[in-house]
Amino acid sequence: MQSDRNQELAAGFVDGAYIRQGADALRSHEKKLTSLLAQRRLPEHGWDDLSIQRLLGDLAQMDSNNFVHNAGAGEREARVASTLVLNRCFYLAHGVGRSGDICAVQPKAAGSSLLVQLTNCLALDMLHVAGVKNASSAIVLPVATGMALLFAMLTLQAAARVPGEPNRKRYVLWPRIDQKSCFKSMVTSGLEPVVIENAADGDELRTDLAALEAKVLELGPANILCVLSTTSCFAPRGYDRVEEIARLCQQYDIGHVINNAYGLQSSKCTHLVNQAFRSGRVDACIQSTDKNFLVPVGGSVICGPNKAFVQEIGKLYPGRASNAPALDLFITMLHLGRAGYKALLDARKALVPYFRDELAKVADAHGERLLVTRHNDISFCISVGRCCGASGDATFLGSMLFSRGVSGTRIVTGRAEAKIAGYAFRGFGAHADAYPGPYLSAACAIGMTKADVDLFVGRLDKTLREFSSHNGVV
Amino acid sequence: MQSDRNQELAAGFVDGAYIRQGADALRSHEKKLTSLLAQRRLPEHGWDDLSIQRLLGDLAQMDSNNFVHNAGAGEREARVASTLVLNRCFYLAHGVGRSGDICAVQPKAAGSSLLVQLTNCLALDMLHVAGVKNASSAIVLPVATGMALLFAMLTLQAAARVPGEPNRKRYVLWPRIDQKSCFKSMVTSGLEPVVIENAADGDELRTDLAALEAKVLELGPANILCVLSTTSCFAPRGYDRVEEIARLCQQYDIGHVINNAYGLQSSKCTHLVNQAFRSGRVDACIQSTDKNFLVPVGGSVICGPNKAFVQEIGKLYPGRASNAPALDLFITMLHLGRAGYKALLDARKALVPYFRDELAKVADAHGERLLVTRHNDISFCISVGRCCGASGDATFLGSMLFSRGVSGTRIVTGRAEAKIAGYAFRGFGAHADAYPGPYLSAACAIGMTKADVDLFVGRLDKTLREFSSHNGVV
Amino acid sequence: MQSDRNQELAAGFVDGAYIRQGADALRSHEKKLTSLLAQRRLPEHGWDDLSIQRLLGDLAQMDSNNFVHNAGAGEREARVASTLVLNRCFYLAHGVGRSGDICAVQPKAAGSSLLVQLTNCLALDMLHVAGVKNASSAIVLPVATGMALLFAMLTLQAAARVPGEPNRKRYVLWPRIDQKSCFKSMVTSGLEPVVIENAADGDELRTDLAALEAKVLELGPANILCVLSTTSCFAPRGYDRVEEIARLCQQYDIGHVINNAYGLQSSKCTHLVNQAFRSGRVDACIQSTDKNFLVPVGGSVICGPNKAFVQEIGKLYPGRASNAPALDLFITMLHLGRAGYKALLDARKALVPYFRDELAKVADAHGERLLVTRHNDISFCISVGRCCGASGDATFLGSMLFSRGVSGTRIVTGRAEAKIAGYAFRGFGAHADAYPGPYLSAACAIGMTKADVDLFVGRLDKTLREFSSHNGVV
Amino acid sequence: MQSDRNQELAAGFVDGAYIRQGADALRSHEKKLTSLLAQRRLPEHGWDDLSIQRLLGDLAQMDSNNFVHNAGAGEREARVASTLVLNRCFYLAHGVGRSGDICAVQPKAAGSSLLVQLTNCLALDMLHVAGVKNASSAIVLPVATGMALLFAMLTLQAAARVPGEPNRKRYVLWPRIDQKSCFKSMVTSGLEPVVIENAADGDELRTDLAALEAKVLELGPANILCVLSTTSCFAPRGYDRVEEIARLCQQYDIGHVINNAYGLQSSKCTHLVNQAFRSGRVDACIQSTDKNFLVPVGGSVICGPNKAFVQEIGKLYPGRASNAPALDLFITMLHLGRAGYKALLDARKALVPYFRDELAKVADAHGERLLVTRHNDISFCISVGRCCGASGDATFLGSMLFSRGVSGTRIVTGRAEAKIAGYAFRGFGAHADAYPGPYLSAACAIGMTKADVDLFVGRLDKTLREFSSHNGVV
Repeated sequence: MQSDRNQELAAGFVDGAYIRQGADALRSHEKKLTSLLAQRRLPEHGWDDLSIQRLLGDLAQMDSNNFVHNAGAGEREARVASTLVLNRCFYLAHGVGRSGDICAVQPKAAGSSLLVQLTNCLALDMLHVAGVKNASSAIVLPVATGMALLFAMLTLQAAARVPGEPNRKRYVLWPRIDQKSCFKSMVTSGLEPVVIENAADGDELRTDLAALEAKVLELGPANILCVLSTTSCFAPRGYDRVEEIARLCQQYDIGHVINNAYGLQSSKCTHLVNQAFRSGRVDACIQSTDKNFLVPVGGSVICGPNKAFVQEIGKLYPGRASNAPALDLFITMLHLGRAGYKALLDARKALVPYFRDELAKVADAHGERLLVTRHNDISFCISVGRCCGASGDATFLGSMLFSRGVSGTRIVTGRAEAKIAGYAFRGFGAHADAYPGPYLSAACAIGMTKADVDLFVGRLDKTLREFSSHNGVV
Repeated sequence: MQSDRNQELAAGFVDGAYIRQGADALRSHEKKLTSLLAQRRLPEHGWDDLSIQRLLGDLAQMDSNNFVHNAGAGEREARVASTLVLNRCFYLAHGVGRSGDICAVQPKAAGSSLLVQLTNCLALDMLHVAGVKNASSAIVLPVATGMALLFAMLTLQAAARVPGEPNRKRYVLWPRIDQKSCFKSMVTSGLEPVVIENAADGDELRTDLAALEAKVLELGPANILCVLSTTSCFAPRGYDRVEEIARLCQQYDIGHVINNAYGLQSSKCTHLVNQAFRSGRVDACIQSTDKNFLVPVGGSVICGPNKAFVQEIGKLYPGRASNAPALDLFITMLHLGRAGYKALLDARKALVPYFRDELAKVADAHGERLLVTRHNDISFCISVGRCCGASGDATFLGSMLFSRGVSGTRIVTGRAEAKIAGYAFRGFGAHADAYPGPYLSAACAIGMTKADVDLFVGRLDKTLREFSSHNGVV
Repeated sequence: MQSDRNQELAAGFVDGAYIRQGADALRSHEKKLTSLLAQRRLPEHGWDDLSIQRLLGDLAQMDSNNFVHNAGAGEREARVASTLVLNRCFYLAHGVGRSGDICAVQPKAAGSSLLVQLTNCLALDMLHVAGVKNASSAIVLPVATGMALLFAMLTLQAAARVPGEPNRKRYVLWPRIDQKSCFKSMVTSGLEPVVIENAADGDELRTDLAALEAKVLELGPANILCVLSTTSCFAPRGYDRVEEIARLCQQYDIGHVINNAYGLQSSKCTHLVNQAFRSGRVDACIQSTDKNFLVPVGGSVICGPNKAFVQEIGKLYPGRASNAPALDLFITMLHLGRAGYKALLDARKALVPYFRDELAKVADAHGERLLVTRHNDISFCISVGRCCGASGDATFLGSMLFSRGVSGTRIVTGRAEAKIAGYAFRGFGAHADAYPGPYLSAACAIGMTKADVDLFVGRLDKTLREFSSHNGVV
Repeated sequence: MQSDRNQELAAGFVDGAYIRQGADALRSHEKKLTSLLAQRRLPEHGWDDLSIQRLLGDLAQMDSNNFVHNAGAGEREARVASTLVLNRCFYLAHGVGRSGDICAVQPKAAGSSLLVQLTNCLALDMLHVAGVKNASSAIVLPVATGMALLFAMLTLQAAARVPGEPNRKRYVLWPRIDQKSCFKSMVTSGLEPVVIENAADGDELRTDLAALEAKVLELGPANILCVLSTTSCFAPRGYDRVEEIARLCQQYDIGHVINNAYGLQSSKCTHLVNQAFRSGRVDACIQSTDKNFLVPVGGSVICGPNKAFVQEIGKLYPGRASNAPALDLFITMLHLGRAGYKALLDARKALVPYFRDELAKVADAHGERLLVTRHNDISFCISVGRCCGASGDATFLGSMLFSRGVSGTRIVTGRAEAKIAGYAFRGFGAHADAYPGPYLSAACAIGMTKADVDLFVGRLDKTLREFSSHNGVV
């Protein structure tokens, strides 16, 4: 109903004045799209669902599988057997990328290709809104954080490969963060992780910069592919001293990949990353789409200060991939708009003090305490040692919370041993071989509401009481 | 993505050649719409669901409730609380019609209004395809057949009202058809039904034209509002002698409303109706949307040879109404296209002999027989008297079929008594006071497949065996 | 996944503890449903969309058209041609009602039938929440207000019909309200409207009780079918003196139908209706579903203090009907819950003073004034005579507002003449033959937000300025 | 509506007999699910969409993000901002896998976890139906073929890693197939591809077994990670001599990965793979989900004769991933059922001779010929040299076909040079350095219909005529 001709014909059915007003609305939709395409940035205000669906419909109709008269004679023509599936992918069935490049344009799928390009532009804008203003390029990868780290390191490796010495740069220096995926990403890449234990600062654990530099010198910068640093993490680990690490990497000419998994929601993390981009060396910084942007699991955004390197990562990806992560993010970004995303960030920031205080109150009520961690404003911990009683074992508290419908908390005994991809860890979960006592961590993450906090602390309180009582603690 | 400007901008993201091909596809969608609006007829081939959804999206965006900057200060602004509801109505929430006229255009809702107008045009074309080529106008009413009959008669009454004698034309002559809605439609209208019993012709029951004419003369044409004749009906009643009735109505200057509920699927019925339009008097002919066009229950199409009268019916409707019947039909007509609808009609016609033969075989196998009914090619009957054994009661067979997952068959004992709106009927269900014996009727209706027939007759066979055995019949 | 057997088998794939937790969630859904079925009232808190969809899925699977092994051999088997249509009706294709009764249960469609019954129960609860606590029964009709009024009057008429004097009770006394549908509903029913002009009380127009009683005596109570009174209406008409009318109807033994179209949102209207139910005669009270419950246009709720009469109305309806209005309402009631509906009512009530004050400010700014109307807290008026300048014509202001995206306001000149169904009206739109001057009315309806008010008054202000300037008024 | 209690309550609204029948239908749905869970195989007949949606609804409700009273305090609670996104993922937002293993069960998401496990079981059954009966295990990876090959090789490498000699097994022997993704998968893995040129056999190109064995001996088996062989490919390359390769790999104790990208649709390919599993060494065989099962791009199925190795690949995957490929496949497998999938396979097989003959006819008509390729029954070629005329350049034919809406054909000049990941190829696209002449390839792939073939060959014919004429060829 976009063409003048059709609007004219429509006026043969319905009063022209009304059709004109309707046509104005259609035009105003086109103008919103013009802004999007011209500015390549988030709309200030989120789009309504009808407008989003209409854009997706336009994009779908631009893909060859939806051409009414397409004659498809390839081995992959995006034929879809199930209507349920066709509807859920909005008729966009060609996936993303081509053999050459995950960001490449597909001749058969102009609409899908445009969606990918736009998604990357808007994602960069999201990063800017969140505070990583020095990011010069971003691509949305159809893989979660662990895989994105793997790709970043493989790309670094490909760039650093010395003919005849395929295995020269094989070490990754890794300030310890007890999370399996990131550790596996190094091993799966065929690299050798070198653990840098954290330094304790009161309750908190932080990057041991001196140990890191010592290790650089010990192994030799020429043999080190990169440092893999981490911002967002479970307390009582604080975010890494990323800026200092970036400077160290610059000084010794070694790579630097930042695992900023859910750090976009914290202005402290984004400030850190932004500074590191400016003042030292960062090759790539990876963030999860689901943990930061409230979409289903499955994607990540990779960005950096150097556009060429970021693009290179996309080019390493072999073959096509699912469009689901990009599509989910595209819809969500249009839905939120700049204002909606800011509002989510602001709401979380405003909720943090309340979350921390309520958590501290519950701890106090049970003779426990909030651990002091000044460099982490997403994850918080309370000690649970007293509630364990004579047994000293906190493990059962985890099951109790699970069965009472509390999800996302972690009980850390500090005594667990784990073997990951052949590497042994003591005190796994605690980011340290021997953390002083058992604790519980919980997160105040984006999308949480005050009601969520109240529900959580109420249930935690009740569970701690039962747990204490079960352990004979009065 | 319709404007040149936006396509140009899109070419800044994706190779221009690909965007151009995508834009061609968008334009080809616009052209399909141009055909629809210009020709006001069914497309030859059905549209794919994506195209239908895009058109509905366009229409929705033309309704004021979806204008991004609408300032609504009325008592009815089509605000919708539930997203599920909003999605299921495709954002078209203004309903159809205005206080004055169910077909009227709504200033606030150009898109919804256009949908209504188009639906009426396409529905007329469906009627033409089905064979009612003499229909000059059609409107889709958001009420089922019974209510549509009521409206047709109220309109006739309003037109015939003699000042000072409000109740003059109060009789409706009604060749008996044992179906409650149509009977109630007369009573609810405040009219007085006059039953014309059917004449037996072998197994079959048909219009007793002589009795009808005699009654006209007895009551006096001036006191008779109309004849309410019926085409599609349960066998062994045949369709009425509609053409002769039309001539009789013309001769005596009395109204004529045809209840063609599910007759569009039978070329015999449509031929009859079409002839009646041409050679006698018919004021309105009513058909069900669900029974003819495979949409959910709820609408009817009212047509006639005289455009003015049909429009008058729409004008009688007080207030707005749900758009659901029109929307369902609009989608379905675009989905089927002329070819798809024809294919459905042809498939049914081709299935009829098979259905009848298979039914006859089952009857034979149980010592029963197919009743001979030459003027009904939708509904067929078999006797079930022998299977009833000494009891003579067929009622239980109905429950047995129901509990074995057979729906739509009717067991007629011929002995039931019923009181409808105060009127007493003997032999209700059999269209006659005393039909010779019990029978079962079943229909070969549009959308039925050969597999459906096989499933049905197989289960009927098994049930008759059990029923006979239960009755001690070997 | 509801049966123990299936959950046990599932534990062969996924840890039993997790499956048990999932099964708890399924059971908790069943419990919510138990509450609904046992209490037959709105849930306190709205259901999430997933839960609503699962219930609809259960209901659909209970309808025969969705039985996997159904053998359908009827003329109406709810076959649906288009997947888009099937999805949008949630596979519930059998409509509502049976030939006998719009509330009747359909053997083929247990799920659809249950939906209808539940909807009626929940709708009654909504009425109670809104304040009509004396309503003893409610049914949701698949027709809008105008048609529901028609049905109420036809039912009254059927009940009152005196053998031999079919046309005895033919008058409807109607305190004038300038809205076409309700007027047409009387004429379409074949009744004779008798207009009772309103009495002016300052700016406001109210029921002229004395004139009403005089007319009763003049025509003779035995010849009067009913009074059709109105609550919600466009200012400066106030709601009718419904309680007094109810007492008068009781005294003279004449029927009483209340048009409470969008009155549920105003506690003043519901209080009035509730009192009338208790202290006088009311046969039926009709409310719109779209105007009160934020669903698409198409349904109405009819209630009354006398259960038997309300049920009788349902029984008059000839044939089946669309389930769309019931389905939309059912979903919306589950979505809102009691708390959600109350919140909507409270929000509107709280917004009214702001709306009125802002409107008054705009009027003042242009030398106009808010009309004083104390018996209408939904619709408000401002004079616009000064802005018309010498021309004195306000009509053009309407077009200006329309083209500036303001919907729902009405410009009343007080001089319009109209002919509706043969009856002539002077001053149509103003509820009076000669209202003193031109005015604009606007409504503060349920679902409106403060932002909507601001947008509206801002645009009104701007338009009045342009209009004044166009008329040479400084 | 599953519990006895609720059905009993429902019978308080609707006749108990009808509710019982509805409840039977609900139970029959549960039984279908029991079969699925107990047999872990495809249902014989596909499920209807309503049943599929209800199962997905059950699974969703078993995930913690949909628990009504969940208290989420983690950094990832599957909160979803956009309703459009939530609907399209059927409320299943937790993705698949855990840090440790892509097939691992997620405690927070019992429903999603069950979906993953079931999907793997059903996918294995699909492989069996297609003919790979010796597959003992299958997992669905949320990455396309290229990435799956990469993971298979990384897993082989991890298993083969010799302490102290991290880079020992670094060669991959690769019978040339001109497709970028598979080549890149080797390079991205950090491995060294060794190209084994194909041997010509008439028009056809096939594995040069002698050259392959010679290279094994030249490089030394101990230095070779694996052979990467290919079944489905663009003609005139035939599928590799996979069985012989498998025996050779067994003999020399080197790995073997089969790229069976779209080979499941050809019984010739599946027979080959199945034999190779039995009679030699195959570590992993990879197939695309979109190319074989008519789902959107994005997943692959990896299978093998050795369950432990296949599981190992899953364990290598670092972190979680999108559930989109698994969900699409799960829905599609339930939709098709065993019968539906077989019907698709049979339809393709039956279409191949027609496709080939029609293609040959077009070739003949233009003085060209169908190339003789006996070991490829998906892709077919015709020469296009004569049509190129004096220019000898076929490139433009590709653009012409593209702009005429023909997708999926490839024009191969045999003269193209390409550099992929640093490696240079002559004659790229032709699987050979110097293929005799230019040709066009086209595929008869699963889902293609006779109408598609007719449309394609008709348009090809027309385009060749125009192309010839453009080149001055009469």
